Amino acid sequence: MLKAVFFDIDDTLYDSTTLARRARLNSIRAMIDAGLEERDEARLYSLLQRIIKKFGSNYPRHYDELLNELGVPWNPKIVAAGVVAYEHTKFGYLKPFPGVVPTLIELRQRFRLGVISNGLAIKQWEKLINLSLHHFFDVVVTSEEVGCEKPSRRIFEVAVRRLGVASEECVMVGDRIATDVVGGKRAGMRTVWVRRGKYASSEPRSEEERPDAIIREIVELPEVLEKLSR
Amino acid sequence: MLKAVFFDIDDTLYDSTTLARRARLNSIRAMIDAGLEERDEARLYSLLQRIIKKFGSNYPRHYDELLNELGVPWNPKIVAAGVVAYEHTKFGYLKPFPGVVPTLIELRQRFRLGVISNGLAIKQWEKLINLSLHHFFDVVVTSEEVGCEKPSRRIFEVAVRRLGVASEECVMVGDRIATDVVGGKRAGMRTVWVRRGKYASSEPRSEEERPDAIIREIVELPEVLEKLSR
Repeated sequence: MLKAVFFDIDDTLYDSTTLARRARLNSIRAMIDAGLEERDEARLYSLLQRIIKKFGSNYPRHYDELLNELGVPWNPKIVAAGVVAYEHTKFGYLKPFPGVVPTLIELRQRFRLGVISNGLAIKQWEKLINLSLHHFFDVVVTSEEVGCEKPSRRIFEVAVRRLGVASEECVMVGDRIATDVVGGKRAGMRTVWVRRGKYASSEPRSEEERPDAIIREIVELPEVLEKLSR
Repeated sequence: MLKAVFFDIDDTLYDSTTLARRARLNSIRAMIDAGLEERDEARLYSLLQRIIKKFGSNYPRHYDELLNELGVPWNPKIVAAGVVAYEHTKFGYLKPFPGVVPTLIELRQRFRLGVISNGLAIKQWEKLINLSLHHFFDVVVTSEEVGCEKPSRRIFEVAVRRLGVASEECVMVGDRIATDVVGGKRAGMRTVWVRRGKYASSEPRSEEERPDAIIREIVELPEVLEKLSR
């Protein structure tokens, strides 16, 4: 019998890919408005993408580094313009995917719910709180707290243990095969792949990568869980 | 002849005292909502005030420290709830005082405008940008960049030099006698004290503390500058 459902956050509960893209584009426009001499938005966007890839998305000085790469002296007006535009755009896009809230309300009556997420604890909690989803989950486990990332078994085991259930009684729901499906299966969970966003075109290439179910929207989850329970 | 007008930011261009108070109160309520066991808002507020005083307003971990002082284990849900509530409240209150924008538009036709502010460069620029005031100023000087704070003469001298004017041709406008008036006078500027907010009840106690003019609202500034120009 299924007792618990675990969710990934980014691109599973909300559209993090669109958020990041729109926020970065708006931050570039704001930096140009604040006096950045380079005005080629496409060039600046691809440079910013490279910097984020190089330093990681949690590095706090992407815009300082952008100026540095452009050979421009540090300029707090331009950096602050980028930060403010990013923040405002972020709040505008931090909304759950359509159907997520009613689905969680429904699932909450039959399952315990949790989150298993790669990232910094405070940052991931801030997302859940901005999404107004933080009251739905009995347990939220982040890789920062556990010290290892999905698909490591350990992060799934910590989540399962905190809920006091067995891994066979759990389902992991996420948009990435390589982390959510592979990790969930390794830990002994059932897995549901939400095939949308930037990983939608990937394909399971082995038994380990094959989810128990594939959905496109979270609203399909209750029906899928019904089938998996039989 | 007067050529330039310099402004303080906090409690001069916008109501930073009310912002800080409302944002902190909302962060406390959000932390209680997120599970903080101590529910006495007044007690939590005064504890938070003490922590901010002890660590400074730019310390990034006030809420972590609050849990620490309460003897509660670190909890990312509660800390993130405080941060998110603070941020959202902040954006709601980051609006210029009534009359600031039309007054700056008017002054911009006759004077060069600048900002002289104690604080971190990025943080102070973020405020100006959120206030949509960043395009009004020819120069913004922060204590972080100069390496000394108001009322030190040096921060005023840097601002004056950057504009290429003489200090006798400048007016400093701010809400604090101890920093804006005393510092401006020491640097050889005229000074206008905006008597509002938390320092409204202070009184000039010496010649050094006596401003050239006292106003209650920024809208009074054009008329006052007219008189000081004669």
